[in-house]
Amino acid sequence: MTSDTANSQDLSFTILGTGALGGFYGSRLLVGGSRVRFIAHSDVDFIRREGLRVDSPLGDQHHHPVEVYADSDEIPLSDVVCVGLKTTQNHRLVELLRPLVGEGTLILNLQNGLTMEEELAEAFPQAVVVAGLCFLCSNKVGPGHIAHLDYGLVSFAPLDARGRERIPDLMAAFSAGGVKVESQPSLPQARWRKLAWNIPFNGLSVLLDVETNRIMADPDGRALAEQLMAEVSLGAETCGVPFDEGFMPRLMEITEAMTPYAPSMRLDYLARRELEIEFMYRRPLREVARRGVRLPAIEAVARLLTLFDRRNRSAET
Amino acid sequence: MTSDTANSQDLSFTILGTGALGGFYGSRLLVGGSRVRFIAHSDVDFIRREGLRVDSPLGDQHHHPVEVYADSDEIPLSDVVCVGLKTTQNHRLVELLRPLVGEGTLILNLQNGLTMEEELAEAFPQAVVVAGLCFLCSNKVGPGHIAHLDYGLVSFAPLDARGRERIPDLMAAFSAGGVKVESQPSLPQARWRKLAWNIPFNGLSVLLDVETNRIMADPDGRALAEQLMAEVSLGAETCGVPFDEGFMPRLMEITEAMTPYAPSMRLDYLARRELEIEFMYRRPLREVARRGVRLPAIEAVARLLTLFDRRNRSAET
Repeated sequence: MTSDTANSQDLSFTILGTGALGGFYGSRLLVGGSRVRFIAHSDVDFIRREGLRVDSPLGDQHHHPVEVYADSDEIPLSDVVCVGLKTTQNHRLVELLRPLVGEGTLILNLQNGLTMEEELAEAFPQAVVVAGLCFLCSNKVGPGHIAHLDYGLVSFAPLDARGRERIPDLMAAFSAGGVKVESQPSLPQARWRKLAWNIPFNGLSVLLDVETNRIMADPDGRALAEQLMAEVSLGAETCGVPFDEGFMPRLMEITEAMTPYAPSMRLDYLARRELEIEFMYRRPLREVARRGVRLPAIEAVARLLTLFDRRNRSAET
Repeated sequence: MTSDTANSQDLSFTILGTGALGGFYGSRLLVGGSRVRFIAHSDVDFIRREGLRVDSPLGDQHHHPVEVYADSDEIPLSDVVCVGLKTTQNHRLVELLRPLVGEGTLILNLQNGLTMEEELAEAFPQAVVVAGLCFLCSNKVGPGHIAHLDYGLVSFAPLDARGRERIPDLMAAFSAGGVKVESQPSLPQARWRKLAWNIPFNGLSVLLDVETNRIMADPDGRALAEQLMAEVSLGAETCGVPFDEGFMPRLMEITEAMTPYAPSMRLDYLARRELEIEFMYRRPLREVARRGVRLPAIEAVARLLTLFDRRNRSAET
């Protein structure tokens, strides 16, 4: 089956990583009528036995039975593989994807950060790579149990022309499940726009141990967020995808209007999971440095986060 | 009495602020034979009654009786007024000094930070201003009780030629009390050299909640210290007093060789006192910004410290 002949509802999906993100979108795709294969790790037996629960303002779901696999299982090929693992797992991502990717398989990368699409395209020249940038507040609250709190938009951006052609079907499948969707023509622009929010608010929420509303309410917190965002803007410009005038003030306004929000890095920190510093901070810094530009405040924040992360995971509970 | 006619032992001192710093140096000046008048705040009655204790590797001292005043008392003029208050008190420093400063009084500023000597000279044109940069680890452990832990060097630097002439007598008086002394010809250079250590290690010890050895032991901690120090170096250069080649590596080596050390800002933080961010960070940033240069990582650290400080002092105990 290729996307040319399929209706969107006919697309099949494999969700690599049934966590807060993969579990939520997989659930919505099931609701929309797609066939969905989940790959889970610690809770694969639980989900096989008890199914997958997703509590959500879009309606609570209990999918049971559900097609779930361990990554060591023989897994049928799907049209689309959604990468729902944290970027902290990226050292083993290619190996995990290898049995899941055939000729023309669409790899939909739902991760944060920069440069992973390029790596995937290099590792899988037979595949088509599309990024799905997720604006989602969701949490895994127990085995096979996801709590979706708010938001959910997926913004699709293709790595190349082959990906661009397949985005309408992806949008239809997600949309059928009640997920808001949009598409952006330029992947680097989409990634850097997302970093404009992620770099300040993820890092500061960890360093300051607060949610976004507290950062926005304090003049120094806001100044710091703006300083970091301005460096992201310089990074975007350096990489050839400058922000529109008005983009950053608008982003600050949106953040101001948000309810108290815990960015994913804060949730990771509180759960003592490894922080996504490499792909959210160090890769963007490296891309910019390769072009001869430094982003010193982001560098400092990345180093502080590294130290916080190390202490956090070595601390006794 | 003027310095021209006095022996160093004949110099009289008023110590404004009988804390970890003023209490220690006042004690050493007493030991060296100088007349010393202490101004204390919360513990003036205690010191009047019980005297002043200073525990020190140089020998424990119990000065009793001791000449101690509240700042509202009538206080005889001394030849030298030592400013031993934290810079967080600088908004009232001129007012506190006014009754203590006569024609030719030497104001010896023992504070950290930048630009206060210039302010003092402007407020007291009849006085002579000298900076005494203190390399000291000392702590106030109770009313009238100081614990000197290590170090103690005072590096004297004059604001102008009048100050330069009086430094030898100051050095003699401190030296007579067993304090190591040196002099530096350029006040801005001396101040920036001290900031090269203070800016990285004071700030990081608070943000990371560790002593210097832990910063030095971690590659990211060390990289962060070096990044901040390199920005201080740019600041010094911008202000016309570039560091010698080799200065920064030497400073890192010295810090490496130090025993675990809690910088004063860490002690302030642990005691929930206001942090010296204004004079140690914001004033240097402002001096550099006036010359068109920004130090972004130091800016970010200053803002983080402001947020840490606010939270620290508003926290319930």
